[in-house]
Amino acid sequence: MANFDIEISEVGPRDGLQSIKAIMPTEAKKAWIKAEFEAGVPEIEVGSFVSPKLLPQLADTAEIVAYARTLPGLQIAALVPNLRGLEAAVKAGVHKVGIPFSQSETHSIKNVKKTHPEMLAEIQRCVEFLQTVPAEQRPRFEVGLSTAFGCTIEGNVDEDVVVSNAEKVLEIGADEVGLSDTTGFANPVQLKRITQRIWDSCGKDKLMGVHLHNTRGQGLANVLAAVEMGITTVDASLGGIGGCPWAPGASGNIVTEDLVWMLEAMGLKTGIDIDKLLAVRELVKEALPDEPMYGFIPDAGVPKGFVPASAV
Amino acid sequence: MANFDIEISEVGPRDGLQSIKAIMPTEAKKAWIKAEFEAGVPEIEVGSFVSPKLLPQLADTAEIVAYARTLPGLQIAALVPNLRGLEAAVKAGVHKVGIPFSQSETHSIKNVKKTHPEMLAEIQRCVEFLQTVPAEQRPRFEVGLSTAFGCTIEGNVDEDVVVSNAEKVLEIGADEVGLSDTTGFANPVQLKRITQRIWDSCGKDKLMGVHLHNTRGQGLANVLAAVEMGITTVDASLGGIGGCPWAPGASGNIVTEDLVWMLEAMGLKTGIDIDKLLAVRELVKEALPDEPMYGFIPDAGVPKGFVPASAV
Repeated sequence: MANFDIEISEVGPRDGLQSIKAIMPTEAKKAWIKAEFEAGVPEIEVGSFVSPKLLPQLADTAEIVAYARTLPGLQIAALVPNLRGLEAAVKAGVHKVGIPFSQSETHSIKNVKKTHPEMLAEIQRCVEFLQTVPAEQRPRFEVGLSTAFGCTIEGNVDEDVVVSNAEKVLEIGADEVGLSDTTGFANPVQLKRITQRIWDSCGKDKLMGVHLHNTRGQGLANVLAAVEMGITTVDASLGGIGGCPWAPGASGNIVTEDLVWMLEAMGLKTGIDIDKLLAVRELVKEALPDEPMYGFIPDAGVPKGFVPASAV
Repeated sequence: MANFDIEISEVGPRDGLQSIKAIMPTEAKKAWIKAEFEAGVPEIEVGSFVSPKLLPQLADTAEIVAYARTLPGLQIAALVPNLRGLEAAVKAGVHKVGIPFSQSETHSIKNVKKTHPEMLAEIQRCVEFLQTVPAEQRPRFEVGLSTAFGCTIEGNVDEDVVVSNAEKVLEIGADEVGLSDTTGFANPVQLKRITQRIWDSCGKDKLMGVHLHNTRGQGLANVLAAVEMGITTVDASLGGIGGCPWAPGASGNIVTEDLVWMLEAMGLKTGIDIDKLLAVRELVKEALPDEPMYGFIPDAGVPKGFVPASAV
């Protein structure tokens, strides 16, 4: 049985590092991942299988995956933009693969040079490839419905399009979809409405995770809305490092430290030791001395008398 | 009929200014209040009737109230620590008076040199005085249950004490109680639990407002929990200025700009024009050039395509 109520997926080594110019040394990445694993973080998105020309920061992802596989019980996630990346991810031995599918077609074309039909065809090829992979090596395949809450280029994104694309990729054979607020446009009412529509249409077990940003300070309020509904996996980034480099003006992941405190204070177990988690910041700061790190709990500390749910 | 679903009470001119060293010139305060009034802010806590020796920043509160009374329809609130302050507030012509009653007795003694029984006696004297004031000059009298979610000195605060004190002050004759997270300890589950307990015990109409801090980044998540339950008045401070100078380590009001955006995006009318509100920052910055101002919306802007509920 899982020792958490809410599964925190640490995306800093992927979403954080891809958004900054500095390239973190491979050994520092390993130390970061090990320290978070030892703090109890159950899932880490360790990198992205993209061209090293596009993202030299993540060129060592295969090596990082190999290292992460030595940490027993850690769920290793990675991002892929296409079939080629998926093949590399499977070869490396990733447990969970996410492919972003931007619901703003303009953003999709700008980001990965693919229209919606072209993305659906790519996802189809991914599913067909996964069917050839032996079950014990086959990663869970999630389609991330990115820019689902709005796009910095298009503005509002049609919710009917989001729901319809969720239906299509699940019909094609993706294991699940995730909702991504790439641009930090989401509000709690919108998040609940879209989640409910996808659940009604596709089944609750097909949407269990959200990737929310804090660009407009609404990150934790949106998480609250999500977990109140029954969402069980939430992405966050240590120190709030990162964002999306291709959505102009969008930045700011949810801070893992603040998220863990909120959930633990609410009585929801994350399985994470917050003191150990806070200590991980030092490692990251040392490796990325010029990157700003965010978070309220790191400054204010946990409240006097605080007893985390995971400690009870 | 009120032109809002949620009443924002701007507390910057009181909670903000009392927490900083700089003394804002009286004319700048008037300009700030006028600009927020013109942006549609329905209630402003314009100052505190305390000894000018203790808080020289607020020594001009009576003059500020007189000015605010020229702004038609603005609800003018002020804080008072005791009967003497209340008498001055009534004389000045305030519409709503709040008296903080710290639920941590240690904090109460440290802050206003009064035990709980002594505070109850003071509140009793306040109610008796108000009974002698003609109805048309009598302000609404709210007891703010401060440190209701925990105290930086005591740690956890007994919820039974909070509920019992709510009952007692309402029995004495206060018009309503408010919940104040003076220290930024609150989490959404705790907020809902305490609110429900007071509603069950005292009636829903006796607790309609919350004063939450963002010390641990949970301000908007806590607001979401509150408004989802049916709380209708929420305090916030422009630029997040302020906090509580007597609770060590506690700081950080909710940023009015971010709060207004969240509510308007959720479809809840505040009656506030967010562009006009954002413009008020310039006035405050000019008058307080050395004070940091916070907020995500001021940096990120409202999302492309955003239509505020109040504009519909």
